[in-house]
Amino acid sequence: MFITLEGPEGAGKSTLRPPLAARLRAEGHEVVETREPGSGGLGAGIRHLLLNGEAMTPTAELFLFLADRAQHVADIIRPALNRGAWVLCDRHADSTVVYQGHARGLDVSLMRQLNAVATEGLRPNLILLLDLDPAIGLARQDAARRDRLDAEPLTFHQRVRQGFLTEARREPKRWSVLDASASTDSVLAAALAAIHGVNE
Amino acid sequence: MFITLEGPEGAGKSTLRPPLAARLRAEGHEVVETREPGSGGLGAGIRHLLLNGEAMTPTAELFLFLADRAQHVADIIRPALNRGAWVLCDRHADSTVVYQGHARGLDVSLMRQLNAVATEGLRPNLILLLDLDPAIGLARQDAARRDRLDAEPLTFHQRVRQGFLTEARREPKRWSVLDASASTDSVLAAALAAIHGVNE
Repeated sequence: MFITLEGPEGAGKSTLRPPLAARLRAEGHEVVETREPGSGGLGAGIRHLLLNGEAMTPTAELFLFLADRAQHVADIIRPALNRGAWVLCDRHADSTVVYQGHARGLDVSLMRQLNAVATEGLRPNLILLLDLDPAIGLARQDAARRDRLDAEPLTFHQRVRQGFLTEARREPKRWSVLDASASTDSVLAAALAAIHGVNE
Repeated sequence: MFITLEGPEGAGKSTLRPPLAARLRAEGHEVVETREPGSGGLGAGIRHLLLNGEAMTPTAELFLFLADRAQHVADIIRPALNRGAWVLCDRHADSTVVYQGHARGLDVSLMRQLNAVATEGLRPNLILLLDLDPAIGLARQDAARRDRLDAEPLTFHQRVRQGFLTEARREPKRWSVLDASASTDSVLAAALAAIHGVNE
C-alpha cells in the first residue's frame, strides 16, 4: 500500500504523518515514513537547491523535483513496497502536477508523462489531500522558517489549492479529500477511514 | 550561431574551445564560451552532484542534466543568441541523447523529447563532433582528475563513441565529424572550415 499526503503548505501533513503511521503499525503493518523532496540518495543536495537556491526557471525546478523523485523511488519506495511494507510519503508526483502544472503553468499532461518516467509508472494507491484555505495555512507557519516556495504570493497558493481539488475530482477513487481545518484527531480519524475504505 | 562541441572524454573539446573562440572573435563576432553541466544559475550545485555525488539511477542523472540545461539555456545561451552573439558550448543536448540514451540504454526518442522541453526547442546550428578512439581519450587524461563519468568501463565509452557517430549520420547537415587524433592545429582548421561551410 503506497499512500501519499498532499496539500498546500501549512495544511498539517507533517503533523498527521507520525500518528497515522503509529496507528497503521498498531494494525500490524510495517510502515516506512518518507517525504519529497530530499529523501533519496541525492536528496539532501537537491532539496538544498530547491528550497534555498537562487531563482530558477519553472522547467529547471521541474527537472530537479523529478531527479529527486527518481532516486527516491529507486532507493526507498520500491524496495519498501517490494518487501510488503506500507509507504507513507509526504508529497510525491501529484505535487509536481499541481505546483509545476496547475500553479506555475507548465503543461499538466506533460507533468503526468514526466512523473511516469521518474517513477517508472508507480502511482500511489491512495492520495490523502489535506485541503485548506491557503490564507489559514500560511498564517499557521512560522514566518522565519519560510522557504523559497512558501514565499510565493497568495494567488499562487490559491492556484495550488484549486489544482489539488481538480486532480482529486479527476480520479475520485484514488483521492480522499480531508478537511484540514478540523482538529488533528478528526483529520487522523478521516485519514484512517479512507485507508480502511481502500483496503476493504 | 549556436555551436556545440561534443565527443567522448579526452577528445580535446576544452583544448579546442579557446583558440576556436579567438579565431571567431578575430572575424568580428562576439563569442560566448560556455559548457554543460555547471554554467547556469544552478550549475555549480548540480555539477557537484553529477560529478562527485553518490551512485544514482540513470533516470535521476538524466533529470539533473536536464535541470542544469534548462537553467543554462535561460540564463546564458538564449540571452547571448538574442543579442546576436555566437555561443560556443562544450557539451549540450546531444550528450544526453548519447550518454543517457545510447550508452546507458534509456529511450533515445524520449531523450530528444525531454531535451526539447529543457531547451524550449532550441537546437545548435552546428555540432562539432571530436571523434576519437576512447582508449586514446582515456589515456590522455590525468587519472587523478577522473570524475564519476570517466570511471565507467571502456565498453561504456565505446557505446558513447558509436552513439555520437550514429547521431552524426542521422543529421549530417547539422553535424561535422572531426578527427580528434589529428594535431591541435588540424582540428582547429577543420572546425573553422565546418563553421564557414554553415555560414556560406
